[in-house]
Amino acid sequence: MKNFDLAAGNGLINRRHMLSLGMASFGSVVVSKSLAAQTPDIPAWSKSPGPGASEYGAPSRFTDDIKRLASASNPITPGTGASRTPLHLLQGTITPNSLHFERHHSGVPDIDPAEHRLIIHGMVRQPLVFSYEDLLAYPQTSHTYFLECSGNSGASTGANAVDTSAATLHGLLSCAQWTGVMLSTLLDEAGIGPDASWVMATGADAASLGRSIPLYKALNDVFIALYQNGEPIRPEQGYPMRMFVPGWEGNVSVKWLTQIKLTDGPANFKDETSRYTELLTNGKALQFTFPMGVKSLITSPSGQMSLQRQGLHEVTGLAWSGHGGIRRVEVSADGGMTWTDAHLDQNPANLALVRFRIPWQWSGGPAILQSRATDATGNVQPTREAVLALYSSANRYHFNGIQRWAVSVQGEVKNVYA
Amino acid sequence: MKNFDLAAGNGLINRRHMLSLGMASFGSVVVSKSLAAQTPDIPAWSKSPGPGASEYGAPSRFTDDIKRLASASNPITPGTGASRTPLHLLQGTITPNSLHFERHHSGVPDIDPAEHRLIIHGMVRQPLVFSYEDLLAYPQTSHTYFLECSGNSGASTGANAVDTSAATLHGLLSCAQWTGVMLSTLLDEAGIGPDASWVMATGADAASLGRSIPLYKALNDVFIALYQNGEPIRPEQGYPMRMFVPGWEGNVSVKWLTQIKLTDGPANFKDETSRYTELLTNGKALQFTFPMGVKSLITSPSGQMSLQRQGLHEVTGLAWSGHGGIRRVEVSADGGMTWTDAHLDQNPANLALVRFRIPWQWSGGPAILQSRATDATGNVQPTREAVLALYSSANRYHFNGIQRWAVSVQGEVKNVYA
Repeated sequence: MKNFDLAAGNGLINRRHMLSLGMASFGSVVVSKSLAAQTPDIPAWSKSPGPGASEYGAPSRFTDDIKRLASASNPITPGTGASRTPLHLLQGTITPNSLHFERHHSGVPDIDPAEHRLIIHGMVRQPLVFSYEDLLAYPQTSHTYFLECSGNSGASTGANAVDTSAATLHGLLSCAQWTGVMLSTLLDEAGIGPDASWVMATGADAASLGRSIPLYKALNDVFIALYQNGEPIRPEQGYPMRMFVPGWEGNVSVKWLTQIKLTDGPANFKDETSRYTELLTNGKALQFTFPMGVKSLITSPSGQMSLQRQGLHEVTGLAWSGHGGIRRVEVSADGGMTWTDAHLDQNPANLALVRFRIPWQWSGGPAILQSRATDATGNVQPTREAVLALYSSANRYHFNGIQRWAVSVQGEVKNVYA
Repeated sequence: MKNFDLAAGNGLINRRHMLSLGMASFGSVVVSKSLAAQTPDIPAWSKSPGPGASEYGAPSRFTDDIKRLASASNPITPGTGASRTPLHLLQGTITPNSLHFERHHSGVPDIDPAEHRLIIHGMVRQPLVFSYEDLLAYPQTSHTYFLECSGNSGASTGANAVDTSAATLHGLLSCAQWTGVMLSTLLDEAGIGPDASWVMATGADAASLGRSIPLYKALNDVFIALYQNGEPIRPEQGYPMRMFVPGWEGNVSVKWLTQIKLTDGPANFKDETSRYTELLTNGKALQFTFPMGVKSLITSPSGQMSLQRQGLHEVTGLAWSGHGGIRRVEVSADGGMTWTDAHLDQNPANLALVRFRIPWQWSGGPAILQSRATDATGNVQPTREAVLALYSSANRYHFNGIQRWAVSVQGEVKNVYA
């Protein structure tokens, strides 16, 4: 093993240093001058033709473990629950549609698009009714945006650090290229009344989930999403249409959107009073706290993984902010004593997931890995302790504290608080 | 209907002009002061809870028509063939994994990743053997890249313009976020011999498909793709690993990659002599013509679609170039007499699909719609006639001529040559 210039304590390496020194092996690579002895016989799959092209492809049967973590259903509230994206088993930043997280308040309605309607009414010059076909004819726009549930990472507010995976803790988070019609286009056509200042949106699910957002946001970057990663949005994401509110807590991106009403104040729907508010220590609650805070998460190594060998490993994860782009992600391997910047993949897009990476040489000793994101606005991801200090201990929403993973001398990775 | 400032003949409108004039209706929007009369009864799906969260989602049953167009299999060459991405039914630029085009030379092998090996040998200091697990431990990188089959659009070289869809003509084209290990990292570890100048890559399919690429490209941006849009690449895209050669004809991105050999010249594999060469009029053929030319395609309106009404429509499509980014896309509605610039979605990424859009007011008269892309290098997409003049009439590869769609007074859209 070569000696590298360390960028921070306990083995973190600057990628540029490493490349200039020449790359050492990351894997348990078999090296041999006698290739024949090292290579397998010609495998069966190379000896006869396989099946031909298909109409709608599926994953390999050897990746059956890569699934959403679906919560058990409760017969008292059928269809209510969530499924989490297996973040620790994925790479890059796009979430495939089949693995996008879900959160339903009354299950997934089976909507016939020919019968579905979107109504725009309230404080408008003329109320409008759109069929799905109507909307498809409008100009569309595409953006890659993350979506995060307001309750994501809620378990990290608990008193004890649960020994579980990154997906279980933080998997109410996904990212896709969304395409649809700007809400401003439709509101312009309806004609915005002079007193309108809020927009109420309601879904066609049995829960009639409704949320209110200020008109300024609706006119800025909100759109009616019709496509997700190129194809029509999936039923569990709101087929045939959902509102998409970039950067804000997931449930305001109302699925199965059927009604938009312009008003002069918020509706105080049940899901913005009984839920999705942050209880403070003085007994009051914060309401309409829309943007998701700057946040990051190491996805590998992460909870319940096991390092199989000492030496070089890539530490990688995701960063995002509801306030805009990600400027930097720092990583520490020594419990936060020293930090260094990770490399960011591609050009970080505004309000999208960003993948970060940094090489790490594990010497076999104990380590605590953690990441800290800074967004373009200058917000720095807080510690868990700093987030907890803001709210009542009963609050489970908008947790964006730093996630710490402990690596034991056996190589086992565990969720820890300190 | 408002009058807009025209940007080019026969109804093309500058998007900025339109917005400043106020948006008119694109759809057959129902407008009513009596909403109750216009809105349906509460639909059945709003009256009772739907099913809950699931482990691996699927599209709505109402989108069953959105499938790849798979070629019929020939019993003499089992598994050989292709399927085309339904470009005219998609939006944005990302192709969902289930709809990524396929081209197989001996079907899809069912590879057990635990048994698969990648061998790097030939003119190297030390031959290396990698398991799938070995490769997963290496540093990875993510990029959004298009992939286009060398034979895409081959039907457009035929004598007669076939009355068919954009997907049938041009659907051997897709785009995804690919993640994997830089080939340069692995070659650096193997140690590149002083005489090595080419890289031979071979797949584990029954066809043992092999291709050669120059070493300079292999060291530039080529990688071993392990993930596609976040999840492990699909069997039909090379699971567990494929070589990915950005911007170059699709078949050099060898699927089911099992062997890389450094040499001092190309291998002249059967698929770079009998196929994937361009026959010239003098009887000679061009070989190793790797980059795909600058190209664009209007996906809506496109072949076999039908305009249901006069008035405003969004003309939209895709542009790409194997030489780099897309600088501009021009659109004409009057058979090429006048052109104007379309709007490009997002920040056009290098070697990725770019979505273009422009509003068009159809007056009910005949029209010929076409698009013309210019890439960052300054290459301008040629006319069909200019492409045909380069090659023998037998050539079917690397067709990047302008696609013309005729709109009849009945609103029917057809593939035409002039």
